[in-house]
Amino acid sequence: MMNIKHVMTGMALSLSLPLMAQWGGPQVQSTVINADNTVTFNYRSQTAKDVKVSVQFAGEKQMTKGDNDVWSVTVGPAKPDIYPYCFIVDGVNIMDASNPEWFPNETFKNSLLDMREGASKTQQVNEVAHGSVDYVDYYSELMGLYGRLVIYTPPHYDRNQNKKYPVFYLVSGTTDTEEVYFKVGRTNFILDNLIAEGKAEEMIVVMPYGNPSLYFPKGQAPRMMGDMFSKTLIDEIMPFVEKNYRTQNDKDHRAIGGFSRGGNQALANGLANLDKFSYLCSYSSFTMQQLTPEVYKNAADTNSKIKLFWLGVGTDDFLYQNAKEYMDLLDKSGIKNTKVFTDDKFGHTWMNARYFLEQSLPLLFK
Amino acid sequence: MMNIKHVMTGMALSLSLPLMAQWGGPQVQSTVINADNTVTFNYRSQTAKDVKVSVQFAGEKQMTKGDNDVWSVTVGPAKPDIYPYCFIVDGVNIMDASNPEWFPNETFKNSLLDMREGASKTQQVNEVAHGSVDYVDYYSELMGLYGRLVIYTPPHYDRNQNKKYPVFYLVSGTTDTEEVYFKVGRTNFILDNLIAEGKAEEMIVVMPYGNPSLYFPKGQAPRMMGDMFSKTLIDEIMPFVEKNYRTQNDKDHRAIGGFSRGGNQALANGLANLDKFSYLCSYSSFTMQQLTPEVYKNAADTNSKIKLFWLGVGTDDFLYQNAKEYMDLLDKSGIKNTKVFTDDKFGHTWMNARYFLEQSLPLLFK
Repeated sequence: MMNIKHVMTGMALSLSLPLMAQWGGPQVQSTVINADNTVTFNYRSQTAKDVKVSVQFAGEKQMTKGDNDVWSVTVGPAKPDIYPYCFIVDGVNIMDASNPEWFPNETFKNSLLDMREGASKTQQVNEVAHGSVDYVDYYSELMGLYGRLVIYTPPHYDRNQNKKYPVFYLVSGTTDTEEVYFKVGRTNFILDNLIAEGKAEEMIVVMPYGNPSLYFPKGQAPRMMGDMFSKTLIDEIMPFVEKNYRTQNDKDHRAIGGFSRGGNQALANGLANLDKFSYLCSYSSFTMQQLTPEVYKNAADTNSKIKLFWLGVGTDDFLYQNAKEYMDLLDKSGIKNTKVFTDDKFGHTWMNARYFLEQSLPLLFK
Repeated sequence: MMNIKHVMTGMALSLSLPLMAQWGGPQVQSTVINADNTVTFNYRSQTAKDVKVSVQFAGEKQMTKGDNDVWSVTVGPAKPDIYPYCFIVDGVNIMDASNPEWFPNETFKNSLLDMREGASKTQQVNEVAHGSVDYVDYYSELMGLYGRLVIYTPPHYDRNQNKKYPVFYLVSGTTDTEEVYFKVGRTNFILDNLIAEGKAEEMIVVMPYGNPSLYFPKGQAPRMMGDMFSKTLIDEIMPFVEKNYRTQNDKDHRAIGGFSRGGNQALANGLANLDKFSYLCSYSSFTMQQLTPEVYKNAADTNSKIKLFWLGVGTDDFLYQNAKEYMDLLDKSGIKNTKVFTDDKFGHTWMNARYFLEQSLPLLFK
């Protein structure tokens, strides 16, 4: 049976439910969340010889052909969360054509399974005041093209014309696009909920694309001293945001964070610019400690500049050892930091990335 | 050779170019736009037995396996435009995994090929002032859930706090989601350009989801008198927009339009509410003339209420006959209207939908 209580009582976002295919024969519900939190996946094909599903809580699972050319398998139970999945049809990975919720990425295409019942309420769409998520384009003189930013403004931003807000720069991970912290990370709904509960400050969140060299065809990206992302972030994105949004423009009202490679970009840019950022967040990051050796040499000075140095990683993350070594370096150097570990077997995933957002956003700008 | 002049000179949007796959072996550029406006499609697979490409300017084309497991075909030449395409791998339709630009739809997944050189400059990202595209969620009491709106605000909207703007409600077509007029229709860039050239008025564009019954699992949508879209549009979306945006709230500053089914929804709601809308736009619509017979009975009265009744359709559109009959009814009834036909063989596509936007947006609120 469909577990749709939240849908019917107003807790659901419009397009979060996979939708029924309208064309091409009998309809099939591609994902059915059962009462015991198992999930039944269905895929209809008259021609497929082999169909599997790949879902992040279970890996690859063989599906079996039943009536009406529908292949099915029931997987789980799963801890209620939002899971990327795809079908593998005769060896080819495909998104669920009937599900408009997808994972924005450079190199793979997954759909998103949203198990609401029992999942973190802070990640759901609740009846609270909602902010807005803006897609804006800034012109980069450095790159000679427009880059895109996804920008969250908190509830009532437009009405509070005399109010200025702190800004959190939040960087996508390897192969993720600038949409990922919105469409997969649910940063907007997490913040809406935390703000409504009085747990987080109202803030603007700026989500840039962490990999601007891919704006260009292979081999065509301009060569620069230093890396393109850091330059466009500091010299172009920040001025653009501060010109076009009502921001508080000092270090104690700026935070920077990111997931995976984006976490490294956040730490590298944050630590290299402690006159600009007081809050640093690392989510499941690949950390390159050698980038900023000077900050470890004078812990008292560094600690005086940083209000929050937050690091989260899953103990099953393939980057765990790297993250742990970095944490050890911080501790050994006397750099104050906050560590959060998950041991839920989710490893290097957006299930963890959302959890880390939930845990760290309340600590910003306090 | 890649035709990248626009990219290197700043005319390109960040993610408009298909990106190179970063993982899984030698990189392959999935689409290469050649100097003669043919397009070479490449797809790499070690296991595929048959690969085709389906692209809206050419239909399905067989690809041939060459070196390094790369299947290729060169298609066209094509008139420069933005074309949906997908690969068909052993009979399975898949998006281009390496291209983040995609067609948001309920039931199929296509990528977008953007041929800039020679294409309509009005549809490109130019160095002009840019508006913002906001994703916002409105609570629907009627449906008991949140619906999503995509809302364009023109350049400098945030800075002109004393200015109020006219509003264009723009409805998605069958199986398209509320993102389609942004991600495929490029309404934001078209308006940015038309406004910069002084050809279109500054306006807010509200893009709702035309098919809210699909917010619910099959058979679970609430039953209502009349249709759900019309009710939520008039009773919920419009009040939400007028509360949260600086809108001019009278009929002469409201327009409604849409593509395909959305065009019918636009005409039905516009004609049924001529106290609320003075501008009506129908793009490649399926028209159900019987919905509003009263407007045809007193042409003088109807004409006095309508400032623009604009209808565009392709002569190759499968809905052309239906559209033509509707136009004939309008003419026979003495209802003033503006007709635009295309004969570019593009039929019922977003190539035409964008062209119709270009042609009709300058006529709104004049």
